[in-house]
Amino acid sequence: MSNVTAIIITIGDELLIGQTIDTNSAWIAQQLNKQGIDVLRRVAVGDTKEAITNALNEELPKADLLILTGGLGPTSDDITKPLLCDYFGGKLRVDEKVLEHLKEMFTRRKRPILERNMKQAEVPDVCTVLFNDMGTAPGMWFEKDGKIIISLPGVPFEMQHIMTKEALPKLNDYFPGEPIIHRSVFTAGEGESFIAEKLLDIEASLPAYIKLAFLPDSGFVKLRLTGKDTDLIKLTSEIEAKQLEIAERLGNIVIAMEDIPVEQILGRSMKANGKTIGFAESCTGGYIGHYVTQVAGASAYFMGSIVSYDNSIKQNVLGVKQETLATYGAVSEETVIEMAQGALKLLNVDYTLSVSGVLGPDGGTDRVKVGTVWMAVASKNEVRTKEFKFFYDRERNKEMAAKNGMLFLWKFINGKLSA
Amino acid sequence: MSNVTAIIITIGDELLIGQTIDTNSAWIAQQLNKQGIDVLRRVAVGDTKEAITNALNEELPKADLLILTGGLGPTSDDITKPLLCDYFGGKLRVDEKVLEHLKEMFTRRKRPILERNMKQAEVPDVCTVLFNDMGTAPGMWFEKDGKIIISLPGVPFEMQHIMTKEALPKLNDYFPGEPIIHRSVFTAGEGESFIAEKLLDIEASLPAYIKLAFLPDSGFVKLRLTGKDTDLIKLTSEIEAKQLEIAERLGNIVIAMEDIPVEQILGRSMKANGKTIGFAESCTGGYIGHYVTQVAGASAYFMGSIVSYDNSIKQNVLGVKQETLATYGAVSEETVIEMAQGALKLLNVDYTLSVSGVLGPDGGTDRVKVGTVWMAVASKNEVRTKEFKFFYDRERNKEMAAKNGMLFLWKFINGKLSA
Repeated sequence: MSNVTAIIITIGDELLIGQTIDTNSAWIAQQLNKQGIDVLRRVAVGDTKEAITNALNEELPKADLLILTGGLGPTSDDITKPLLCDYFGGKLRVDEKVLEHLKEMFTRRKRPILERNMKQAEVPDVCTVLFNDMGTAPGMWFEKDGKIIISLPGVPFEMQHIMTKEALPKLNDYFPGEPIIHRSVFTAGEGESFIAEKLLDIEASLPAYIKLAFLPDSGFVKLRLTGKDTDLIKLTSEIEAKQLEIAERLGNIVIAMEDIPVEQILGRSMKANGKTIGFAESCTGGYIGHYVTQVAGASAYFMGSIVSYDNSIKQNVLGVKQETLATYGAVSEETVIEMAQGALKLLNVDYTLSVSGVLGPDGGTDRVKVGTVWMAVASKNEVRTKEFKFFYDRERNKEMAAKNGMLFLWKFINGKLSA
Repeated sequence: MSNVTAIIITIGDELLIGQTIDTNSAWIAQQLNKQGIDVLRRVAVGDTKEAITNALNEELPKADLLILTGGLGPTSDDITKPLLCDYFGGKLRVDEKVLEHLKEMFTRRKRPILERNMKQAEVPDVCTVLFNDMGTAPGMWFEKDGKIIISLPGVPFEMQHIMTKEALPKLNDYFPGEPIIHRSVFTAGEGESFIAEKLLDIEASLPAYIKLAFLPDSGFVKLRLTGKDTDLIKLTSEIEAKQLEIAERLGNIVIAMEDIPVEQILGRSMKANGKTIGFAESCTGGYIGHYVTQVAGASAYFMGSIVSYDNSIKQNVLGVKQETLATYGAVSEETVIEMAQGALKLLNVDYTLSVSGVLGPDGGTDRVKVGTVWMAVASKNEVRTKEFKFFYDRERNKEMAAKNGMLFLWKFINGKLSA
């Protein structure tokens, strides 16, 4: 049996003028994929009747399932609901459960409920309501000629909530299709081409139903194997054998056997070792602490940071010597060592990471060029340093500094830095 | 004359399995829009010859310009270049300038240059090369039957660089079309429905060529007026009159007359007042410092932060009293006041913001529910506090805490908090 296919249609002028980055499509695609549904295409269209109707007419023949997001808000630029009602030949009716929920939400937030909010309780009588605990616009499930069309609000957490609680379980009942398996190898330290070259023969040896993709991301390269086959047990065993073969070939550039963020790789090892960490961040401004605290339960091992953006904080809070700053500058091996040692004492943690650099666009000198970032990692007994050079813009340099910093610390803690 | 129209096609399986969030489309759309080019649709397709060819065939008749991103890397899952070469009836040739640049890049990074990297210097002889200073894959400009097709690498900063330096200037010469004007009103403190209700008559009074959109984002609502007309001066004056009318109607919930991030609103006022700021962050883990340092030149006013994630840092570094923590808890008005006062002294700044809360999913109690965040803002002479309640997931609660925190501080510094 071939896989169930889906197309995601996102609705909203804000997508076409670039005011909003579409995070919904990626999230929806991930969820569908896990359930063995292939996303064929994604289409974004504006808030006009014509654009939405054309997209429905063009995409409906191509797939088994359409998922629409956006265009369901209470304002008059949101026209999706009446349009879908007409499209499927229905009439709007008030849904009592949705109405109750609306009234309750407005009461809880002490806001007056307006006529236009009440209208959000109206749904086409030809759909099944997908209840929205988290917001005011309900989701809708339509069936037509054996195809499913799901309409969801565009607010990400509302959309996600309705998908998880309502739409995905219903889809699983409706399309009990064959699963897709993904396995990943997460690498750091080499480029995409170098890795591809090393894996030439393994890639050539893959059967037709297993595909290998290279996904470069902020200096890391993720390798993803995707397999599809009716025989799940055989497929799993084959794909995991290939995953291991790749990892063995790549050796010490492999940092994880799955596609998870670096902060989770770090978090996992910290939860296992029972030690504590803290940072001294300069150019990253707190971004590393942000990443680390994205992991629920980070309070078990992350104590805190000193964000010493200005040199006065490096001196007065972290205790970096005035002479060190004057002689070597803020972006230097000497300064990051003192920052790391200062943080170790002040935060009273087992390991620290310190970061100081010039991210750009300004602030570079002949001696310290834009993109130079010094880092130190320290424990009571040892300090290690590393100079990084990033070649991009401020935002991307910061992203790379944060991720490479967490990786540097993880390697230090786990004895993976070469001597 | 009607506007030039464009369709953005993004290529890559990673978009369809949700491994990558498409930030390119939004950026491209913004740039095209500024040049008066309307984006009609965005389509994302997988790395197969069939999918890419179908997308070209389907979208080319609909618009004047197609912009393709992705599928140009050195690995074998990237098939866009040979496909485009065939599609436009060309042959691959080696571009000497691109080849020189490739060799130079590999030398600078001390990496061996591989056969597959050399292949990146091959381009169809029927295109104009859009040179890529920042990476290995060149952009390509094709013309066919009066339409333009541009192919760009998918790596965001490379794509942006080629667009800015090469493609946009060429487009401006090729399509000197009529401009679109956007004007925004940025509000905080009221919901989309409430605002829409207040603006009913203004919205009804808009001429057909001016549109109003409501864009809710993390507790803020951005209102965007979009106008298109041949008479630029008349249009500008009309749209700005409507912008002012809206702002006057909404009064003190208006925080800016343009659509810029809160960190820039804060940064702009700090650059003007010559004062300094620093933070004491607990639950946000450094995220507020990250935002503030996204603004180039933030070093003029942002000194640093204490990220006191663990209570030991609140006590030992910020000097929060042990009794305060024991009596009122870490998430309390009393604690954030002491955090703000501690940071004021330690960081030696004019203003501080402190934040302590429970973002979830765990850590809530009967007294302090998940989503509760206390904040304090302080100067030498004054402290103000505010309790926030966020109702979402960990990530979104953190986002809202960071943005609302910056706004709270901005209001405090600019005398906009009600007495």
